[in-house]
Amino acid sequence: MSQNFRKSVYQTLEITIKGREGISLYINIFLIAIIALNSIAIILHTVPDYKKSYENIFFYFELFSVIIFTIEYVLRVWSCIENEKYKDPFWGRLKFMFTAWEVIDLLAILPFYMSLFSTDLGLFRVLRIFRIIRLFRISKYFQALKVIQRVIQDKREELVLSMAFIFFLLLTSSSVVYYVEHDVQPDKFKSIPDAMWWGVNAMTTVGYGDLHPITPFGKFLGGVIAVLGVTIFALPTGILASGFAEQIREPHKRNKHCPHCGEEIV
Amino acid sequence: MSQNFRKSVYQTLEITIKGREGISLYINIFLIAIIALNSIAIILHTVPDYKKSYENIFFYFELFSVIIFTIEYVLRVWSCIENEKYKDPFWGRLKFMFTAWEVIDLLAILPFYMSLFSTDLGLFRVLRIFRIIRLFRISKYFQALKVIQRVIQDKREELVLSMAFIFFLLLTSSSVVYYVEHDVQPDKFKSIPDAMWWGVNAMTTVGYGDLHPITPFGKFLGGVIAVLGVTIFALPTGILASGFAEQIREPHKRNKHCPHCGEEIV
Amino acid sequence: MSQNFRKSVYQTLEITIKGREGISLYINIFLIAIIALNSIAIILHTVPDYKKSYENIFFYFELFSVIIFTIEYVLRVWSCIENEKYKDPFWGRLKFMFTAWEVIDLLAILPFYMSLFSTDLGLFRVLRIFRIIRLFRISKYFQALKVIQRVIQDKREELVLSMAFIFFLLLTSSSVVYYVEHDVQPDKFKSIPDAMWWGVNAMTTVGYGDLHPITPFGKFLGGVIAVLGVTIFALPTGILASGFAEQIREPHKRNKHCPHCGEEIV
Amino acid sequence: MSQNFRKSVYQTLEITIKGREGISLYINIFLIAIIALNSIAIILHTVPDYKKSYENIFFYFELFSVIIFTIEYVLRVWSCIENEKYKDPFWGRLKFMFTAWEVIDLLAILPFYMSLFSTDLGLFRVLRIFRIIRLFRISKYFQALKVIQRVIQDKREELVLSMAFIFFLLLTSSSVVYYVEHDVQPDKFKSIPDAMWWGVNAMTTVGYGDLHPITPFGKFLGGVIAVLGVTIFALPTGILASGFAEQIREPHKRNKHCPHCGEEIV
Repeated sequence: MSQNFRKSVYQTLEITIKGREGISLYINIFLIAIIALNSIAIILHTVPDYKKSYENIFFYFELFSVIIFTIEYVLRVWSCIENEKYKDPFWGRLKFMFTAWEVIDLLAILPFYMSLFSTDLGLFRVLRIFRIIRLFRISKYFQALKVIQRVIQDKREELVLSMAFIFFLLLTSSSVVYYVEHDVQPDKFKSIPDAMWWGVNAMTTVGYGDLHPITPFGKFLGGVIAVLGVTIFALPTGILASGFAEQIREPHKRNKHCPHCGEEIV
Repeated sequence: MSQNFRKSVYQTLEITIKGREGISLYINIFLIAIIALNSIAIILHTVPDYKKSYENIFFYFELFSVIIFTIEYVLRVWSCIENEKYKDPFWGRLKFMFTAWEVIDLLAILPFYMSLFSTDLGLFRVLRIFRIIRLFRISKYFQALKVIQRVIQDKREELVLSMAFIFFLLLTSSSVVYYVEHDVQPDKFKSIPDAMWWGVNAMTTVGYGDLHPITPFGKFLGGVIAVLGVTIFALPTGILASGFAEQIREPHKRNKHCPHCGEEIV
Repeated sequence: MSQNFRKSVYQTLEITIKGREGISLYINIFLIAIIALNSIAIILHTVPDYKKSYENIFFYFELFSVIIFTIEYVLRVWSCIENEKYKDPFWGRLKFMFTAWEVIDLLAILPFYMSLFSTDLGLFRVLRIFRIIRLFRISKYFQALKVIQRVIQDKREELVLSMAFIFFLLLTSSSVVYYVEHDVQPDKFKSIPDAMWWGVNAMTTVGYGDLHPITPFGKFLGGVIAVLGVTIFALPTGILASGFAEQIREPHKRNKHCPHCGEEIV
Repeated sequence: MSQNFRKSVYQTLEITIKGREGISLYINIFLIAIIALNSIAIILHTVPDYKKSYENIFFYFELFSVIIFTIEYVLRVWSCIENEKYKDPFWGRLKFMFTAWEVIDLLAILPFYMSLFSTDLGLFRVLRIFRIIRLFRISKYFQALKVIQRVIQDKREELVLSMAFIFFLLLTSSSVVYYVEHDVQPDKFKSIPDAMWWGVNAMTTVGYGDLHPITPFGKFLGGVIAVLGVTIFALPTGILASGFAEQIREPHKRNKHCPHCGEEIV
C-alpha cells in the first residue's frame, strides 16, 4: 500500500503529465500560486515602505512557503524512484537530487534554513524566483517551447560562434579604445575592463552615456564599433530566423511526443 | 421605409465595405478627417503657446467633434441590427456596444460629457486618439493587415513564450543586480521594482543612463544581460520572419475573403 | 555632325551604360571624384580650424566644382533628347529636368548662384552631398540594388502598415505618458510633442536620457513601450527577411535587364 | 633527416589539421593557453592595482610568451616550405610571411623588440590579442564558421550596399541636423564631423545622450533618423536571414571539405 501511495504522490507531483484531474490538478495550481506569490513577495519586500509596514506578513508568508516547499521537496525525492530512470532507492534518489530542477528546488529552500543559524543573505532569497521556470514545464505552450529548444539546439554551433565573434570584437575594440582614450580621460577609461564596460554597451547599443570616447579617433572607432555591433548581432537573428523556417518546412520533426505522458520521444 | 433608411445608414457607416461611392464615400472621408484633426488638436492643445492663443478654437472644435461623434455613435448602434450578427433589437445592440470598436467609440465621447459635471480629466481626452485605429480598417492596406494578423496568430504561442522568457530574464536579472548594487547605490537601486526599471532599459538597450551598475560584478552582469537581451529579442524577430516566409509559400491561405463585403471567410 | 556630337555627349554622360571605355570612363571617374571631394569639402568646411586656415582653397574648389557641375548639367539637359523617352526638344527636356536625378543635380548648383546675390545659406550647400546618390547607379552593386528595390517594392504594403503601427503606438503612448508625467516633471514633459520626442527615442531604444518617466506608473508604461517598440520593429525585419528569401527562391525574377544598356525590362 | 624533422615540425604547428594526437596536440594546447593567458595579462596589466602589485610577474610572463611566440614564428616560417603553396625556399617563405595569419603573428611579437630600443607603446601590445583569432581555426565550430563565411560571401553585394545606404543616410542627415542645431548649440554641434558622432549613435540607437537636437525641427529630424536607422539596419538582418535559409535548403553546398586536411575544396 505504501508503494501505491508513493506512486500516487509521484503522479500527483510530476507536473508535466497531461490530462490530470481532481486533487492532482488542485495541488499543482496551489504550488504554482505559492511560487508566483513568493516571487511577488520577494520583489515587494525590497520596497522600503512595504517592508516596514508588512514585515510580519512577509515573514510568516516566507515561513509558510518554505514549509510547503520543503514538504514538496521531500515528497518528490522520496517518490522519484517510481520513475524508471531513478528506480534505485539510494543512487536513483541521489541522481534525481542532482538534476537541474531539483537543485533549483533545493536552492529555493536552503537559504532560509541557513539564515536561522547565521545572518540573512538576501541575495540567496532571489534563488526562489528561479522556481518560476517550472511554469514553463506545465504550460500549454509546451509544444512551442520544444520548437524554440530545437531551433536553438540545431543552430547551437552557429550561435556559439556568433557569440565568439561578438566577444572577440568586444575584446579587441575595447583594448584599442582604452589606449586611445586613457590619456585624455584617465578617470573614465581607467583600464581595459572599464573600457569593456563601455564596449559592451556600445555594441549592444545600450549606451548609458556614463563613459564614451571624446577624441576624434576614439569617436571614429566608437562609431565603427556601434555599426559592427548592430550588424554582428544580426547574425544570431538571421540564424534563428532560418532555424524557425526550417522547423516549419519539416513539420514531421515536430510532433514526436508520447501521446500518454507528453514527454518527447527521441 | 424606416427600415430602408436604417439599412442605408448601416451601409453608409459600415466602413469596411469596399466599392462604395457617392455620399457614403464622402461621409467616411469627412469622419476620418474629423478623427485626424481631433488627434492633432489633442496634441497641440498641450503646447502652452497654442493653448493660450487658441483656447476658444480648441473648445469649439472639441464641441463640434463630440457632437458629430455622438450622432455617429447613436446611428451606428441604431442601425447595427441590419447586420445578421446583431439582429436582435435589444441583445444584438447590447452585444454590438460591447465590441472593441464600439467601446473605443464610446470612450472617445464619454469623457467630454463627464467633464460637464465634474473637473476635466485631460488623460481621458487621449482616448479619442485611439479612434485612429479605425483608419486601419478602411485602408487599401487591408490585405496586408490580414497577412500580419495571420502571422501573429499562427506564431502566437512562440511569441507569448518569447515574452515569457524575456519577463523571466528581466525578473531574475533585476533581482540579482539589486542585491549586488543596493549597498553601493542605495538611492538608485532602492528596490527590486527600481532595479527592474534599469533591467527593462538594459535588455531593450534603451539605456537612459539614469541608473546603471557601478560595481565590477554588477557591470559584468549588466553586460551579460545586455547581450542576452539583444539575443533573446532576436527570437520574436526570427519567429516573425519565418511566419511571413510561411505565408508566402502557402498563398492559397491568403485570399479567403468574401468578394462582396471584404470580410474574411474562415 | 552636331547631332553625332550630341549623341556622343549623351553616351559619355549617361553613367548607367555598362562596358564603356576610354574618354567616357575617365570623364565619369573625374565627375565622381569631384562629387566625393565636394562632400568631404562641405564636411571639413564646418570644422572651425580648417575653415580659418583654408578658406581660400575651399572657396576656389567650390567655384571650380560648381562650374564643372553647371557644364555637366547643361550638357545633360541639352543631350537628353537622344533618349527615346525625352526626344521632344522642348517638352522632353522639361520632363527630363523634373526627373528626381536632375532636380538633385540642379539643387546642387543653384544655392551657389543664389548666394552671389544674397547671404550664403549653408544649409543648402548640403544639397550637393545628395549627388552622392549617383554613385549607387554606376556601381557594380547595381544588381544587388535592384534586388533590394524589388524586395521593398513587393513588401511595400506590409512595410507601410508596420510604419503606421509604429506611428500609432508612438502617438498613443506618448499622449498617455504625457498625462502621467506632466504634473511631476512639468519642465520636461511640457507637451505631447515633447513627450513624442521621448516616445520615439524609447521605441527605437535610442534613449538619450534627457527625459524619461520618473513616476512608478510612467516607468511601467516606459518599460512596456520599450518592449513593444523592439517587438514592433521586428515586423519590418521579418517582412524584409521573407522578402529576400522569396527573391532567392524565384531567381528567374531577377535577371530581367537589357543586355545592352543594363536597364531593367518590365 | 633534417627534411623529415622539418616536415614533422610543419605538421605539428599546422593547427587546422584534424585527427592529430600526442605531442602535436599538447603543443597546440600549450600555445593556445599561452595566447589566452597573454590576452588576460594584457587586460589585467591596465588595472592600476594589479599593475603595481604584480609588475614583475607581468614582465616575466611577457618575456616568456614573446620568446615562445618568436620560436613558434621562426619554426613556422622555416617549415612552411613543406606546404605545396610555399615550396620555394625564398619566395615561398616571403609569400608565407605576408599571409594575414603570419602578419598577425609577427605584429604580436615585434612591439616587444621595438620597446627594448625605444619607449614602450602600450597600444601595440594590443596586437597580441588579435592572435586569439587563431582559436577560430582549430575549433570544432570550423564547419559553422564556413557556413557563416559562405553566407557573408554570397550576400556580399547586398551587405556592402546596405552599408553604403547607412553611410549615405548618416552623411546627409548629420549635415542637415548640423545646420539646424549649430546656431542653438554651437558648442555641441561644432561641425559636421561632430554631428556625425551624434548621427551614428542615433542611427545605431546607442544614444549616449552627450549631444542631441533640442530645436523642434532638429528633434523631428532626430526622430525620423532613429526610425530610419532601425529600419535600414533591418536590411542586413533580413539579408543574412535569407542567406542562412538558402544554405540550409542547399545542403550539398556545405560539406565540400577535403577528408584528409579539412581544407575547403572549391
